[in-house]
Parts: sequence; structure tokens; C-alpha cells
Amino acid sequence: MKLAIYGYGNLGRGVECAVSKAKDATLVGIFTRRDPATVQPLTKVPVYSATRLKEFKNEIDVLILCGGSATDLPTLSPAMAADFNMIDSFDTHAAIPEHFEAVDKAARESNHLSLISAGWDPGLFSLARLYGSAVLPDGDDYTFWGRGVSQGHSDAIRRIDGVLDARQYTVPIEESMDAVRAGLHPALTTGEKHTRECYVVAAPDADKAEIEQKIKTMPNYFSDYTTTVHFITMEELKAHHNGIPHGGTVIRTGNTGLNDENKHVIEYKLQLDSNPEFTAGVLVAFARAIDRMHRRGVTGCCTVFDVAPADLSALSPNELRATML
Amino acid sequence: MKLAIYGYGNLGRGVECAVSKAKDATLVGIFTRRDPATVQPLTKVPVYSATRLKEFKNEIDVLILCGGSATDLPTLSPAMAADFNMIDSFDTHAAIPEHFEAVDKAARESNHLSLISAGWDPGLFSLARLYGSAVLPDGDDYTFWGRGVSQGHSDAIRRIDGVLDARQYTVPIEESMDAVRAGLHPALTTGEKHTRECYVVAAPDADKAEIEQKIKTMPNYFSDYTTTVHFITMEELKAHHNGIPHGGTVIRTGNTGLNDENKHVIEYKLQLDSNPEFTAGVLVAFARAIDRMHRRGVTGCCTVFDVAPADLSALSPNELRATML
Repeated sequence: MKLAIYGYGNLGRGVECAVSKAKDATLVGIFTRRDPATVQPLTKVPVYSATRLKEFKNEIDVLILCGGSATDLPTLSPAMAADFNMIDSFDTHAAIPEHFEAVDKAARESNHLSLISAGWDPGLFSLARLYGSAVLPDGDDYTFWGRGVSQGHSDAIRRIDGVLDARQYTVPIEESMDAVRAGLHPALTTGEKHTRECYVVAAPDADKAEIEQKIKTMPNYFSDYTTTVHFITMEELKAHHNGIPHGGTVIRTGNTGLNDENKHVIEYKLQLDSNPEFTAGVLVAFARAIDRMHRRGVTGCCTVFDVAPADLSALSPNELRATML
Repeated sequence: MKLAIYGYGNLGRGVECAVSKAKDATLVGIFTRRDPATVQPLTKVPVYSATRLKEFKNEIDVLILCGGSATDLPTLSPAMAADFNMIDSFDTHAAIPEHFEAVDKAARESNHLSLISAGWDPGLFSLARLYGSAVLPDGDDYTFWGRGVSQGHSDAIRRIDGVLDARQYTVPIEESMDAVRAGLHPALTTGEKHTRECYVVAAPDADKAEIEQKIKTMPNYFSDYTTTVHFITMEELKAHHNGIPHGGTVIRTGNTGLNDENKHVIEYKLQLDSNPEFTAGVLVAFARAIDRMHRRGVTGCCTVFDVAPADLSALSPNELRATML
């Protein structure tokens, strides 16, 4: 299959690496809204201006959108869905139904197939929630995130006066996870599930006490959580907090038996050194499925819920049954 | 959907309980090869002789086979696939390709749809292996079982002279799991992955040392493992070892990045109080999918790999996207 990348940030670079590991995929090009001459790819892949994308309409099996959910994808995804089979990692959970409708309309009218919201949450975690609820209908599921870097929370700290740089780690509360695993079905507030750890580089003349106060009282981002703030040097930040690790756990607990006497726990856990590179691996696997499904005549918009797992693998159905079932 | 159970042992009773939790399913009947008058169901469900099954051909959407993989299913599944949409939990991994062919032929010729090898391994663990390998192609997966009761190993102990009853627990070796999680990609022999814990009730006049020796040296079952044998009373066995718990963990580790510099761990873990009741929940969810797929015109044999996750849920696609994605 012939893939192309639209948008070349961390996620785009991750997709470039992931395609190099997929024996059945080649990269037609990287499309950027910047001046292509200023973009240096990791591998030998041509870089084009995004304005030239339509010239490649017949050469791209699936276009992988690597833009942001806040401002890029709400308009970019429906626009691209009209000309290409497309996959994105739209992750604003509350806006997914609206995004789905817009992409579905564009893809249906042009007989293309799109898949939205691929990645790990939404994505693999959504699948864990769905499989868990289907096989244990009498139960509850809980999603914990971390330990990992939240880009949104790090950005929020950086916007405070006197802050030069910052990293925020979302940390799941182990005692809450244990209560879930024990089948206690606890009702947990957002602050009872996670704590927030902040590493902040302050300007030399900044008032650190004031910065800490501003972080801890910031509504939505921090005020509902137990938040710790550590002031460190720029050197320490670069040495120890330069990665983009993330992960999390989906736990489903439920009961079976005539009198609900038996308890079951399903736990799906990710520990990722690089959030964007892992997300990229998910995108490439689902791009493979989109290519196959479109060749079978499927059009419109779908999600990870609509993809039969066999379509994700480079192996044949016979090989899968013989080696993985 | 209208379901029926063929075979009423632990798994059949589990399916009976699972159907009672599925709002969109009813149970047409339990079909048994025993005298129906001797079978007492848990709920108000009619019990019929298996010889009468064909009378219900038009009343059953999906027949759930609850027979054993060793002797029942190899002949029973293809036979039933010719008259019904059918699902089984065939778990002899090495014989799956052959079983698939036999069921596929029978189902295709009669325009029915069957799904084989549903449960948790094969089943949910197979899915964990497939998703893991698809999104992290440069990696390895490891499956650990337990802590849980192995029926086959318990039976093997019971066949020793002087043994009145026995339970065998398969126990994963935590240090080996940790080496896998650390991304060391260890080459593990079967005895380096699991130990075997045996609880044995011996006859009053039996030679316990001889029984222990026979267990520990039994080829295939025990000789390749670190095996511990505990002699207990029948009362202790009934008080502390009467359940059928099981579970296990599938771990996929892999690397990404241009120089493989980033490591990722995907872990899927089950802790089950009742192996048959949990397996039954998986069967009912996949029966729902089989019913829907057959109504869309799909025929032949499929596996968990061929089922789009959305088909497993009683919720609509819109509801799934809004609540679980």
C-alpha cells in the first residue's frame, strides 16, 4: 500500500518510522504547510508542499493526517476525506460524533473510506472498553492515564509569566487502581484517579511561590488535583524530561453467575517510551485495514470499532489462524 | 437473538447465566445427550434431547456448542455447522486450521455462518496477540497462564493409583514476566514460564512418596516444570479448591524510532474467578456478532479475528462512538 503523511511534527515523524517497519507499505511523500525546503525528513522520502496534494490523488492509497485535534482536524479531515482514503487521530472525545458526521458525509459523497480517532485513546483503549463491556456486560470500566507527559498541561504551565519551560506528568493513583481491581466499583472523582507532577524552569527573576500558586489553582487543568511543583534548571529538564512517554490502563471488572458470585478483572495496560511513535504504529496498522476495506467496496467513515482485526495484520488469514489464534 | 445450548456441563451452565445478562438474547432451550429428565437447569429453560435439535432449526439464530475439544467438537462442530449458525470454543491450538476447514466447508455448503475457537485463549488472548503484533510489528509476544486450575493436569493426577481427587494450579513465574516487561526479549522454555502446584487427596493406604514421584516425573504434564505437591484432606480440597479460577497475561514488547531507541509494553491481563462462566460471556458476545453478520449475508467459518468489534455490543454504532470511543 502507498501511504502519505500530511503534517510533519512529532506524529508525522513517528509515522515515517512506522512505515519503514511495515514490509507491505511505501511512503509516497510528506506533505507540509511549511516551505518544503525547510523540512528535513528522517528517511529518504520526498517532501512536498501541501498545496500540491491533489496532484497525487491517484498515487496515494491512504493519507495519514498528522495534524492537531484542536484546530487542524475539524476542518482538515472532512476536506481530505473528499479526495483521499484518510485516517486521523482526532482525540477530542466529546466532539467525535460531530467529527464523524462531517467526515462520513465527505467520504460517502466521493466514494472514499476514512477512519477517525485512531491511536491509543481514542483507539486501543476504546477497543479495550468495548471488548470488556461486551464479554462482561454486568460490570464497570475505568480508564487511568499515565505515568506520562500531558502536552496540554505542559503548555498551560508554559503560558504562565516567568515560566521558561515545563513538563507535566499525569500519574495514576495506585490505591484507586487497586480498589478497582478488587471489584469494589468505587465512584472516583477525577482528582481521586490521578495526581499531577510538574517540572518547571523559571526565569531567574521570577517569583517561584507565585508560579506554584498559579499552577495549583488553575481551573480545569490543576485545581481539582493533588499537584506537586518542582523547580529545576533548563539543563535538568533537557537531561531528564526530554522524552514524550505515556501510557495508562483500562480496567473492566464484572460479575457472572446466577447470583453474581464470581468476579472477573480484565486489565489492558500500555507503557510507552514515545507517545507519538506508538500512536503512529496504530495509524499505520489501521491504514492497512482502510486500504483493504476500500478495495472491498466499503465507503464512508468508520472507527476502530468497525475494523475486523484480521485486516490490521500483514499476515494472511491462514497464517493468523495457524500462528496467533 | 434466539440462542440454544448444546451440552450442559460447566460451560453450558455458564452460557445459561450469561444469556440471562444479555438484554437482547433469549434461550430457546438446552439440548443434552443425557436423558433430559435428569438435567436440572439453573433457570426456567426447557431441556430437550439432542436428538430433537433439527426440529428447532428455524427457531434458533445461533447454536452455542458447549462440548469438549478433545473428543466432541472435531465431529460435532462440522455436523452442527451444516444445520445452524454455530459457535464453539475449540481450544486445541495445533488443530485449529484443520477444524476451520471442516467447519467452513459444512457452513458454506448450507449458507450458514460459524465461528470457532471463541473464549479467552484462543479468543481474547488471540486478539491481544494480533492487535499487539499489528501496532508493534518489531517485537515479540509472550503468553503466560494462571494462576489458575488446569483441568487437564488435574485429570492426569487423578488417574494415578491411590489418588482420590486433585487440583493442579498453573502459576506464571513472576521473574520471567518481569524480564519480558523490561524488554529483554528472553528466550523462555516452557518450564521457565510456569510452575505447577498440585493439591492431592490420597487414599488412606496410598504411598504418598510414590504418588509425588509419579506426578513430578510424568512426561509432558509435569516433568519439564518445577512441580510442588501438597497432600490435603478431601475436606480441605472442597473448602479451599472448589472453584475453577484461571487467567493469564499476554505481553507484547517492541521498539520504535529510527534507531529502535524507544521501547513499548502492551499488557493484557485476565483474573477470572470462574473460567467457564467468563468463557461463556465471550461466547454470547460473539454469538451476537454471528447473528448480525449472517443477516448481512456472511457465510462459512470465521474466527474472532474476522469480527468487527462493534458487532459484539448490544449498543448501536452511534452509542458506541459517543460513549466508548
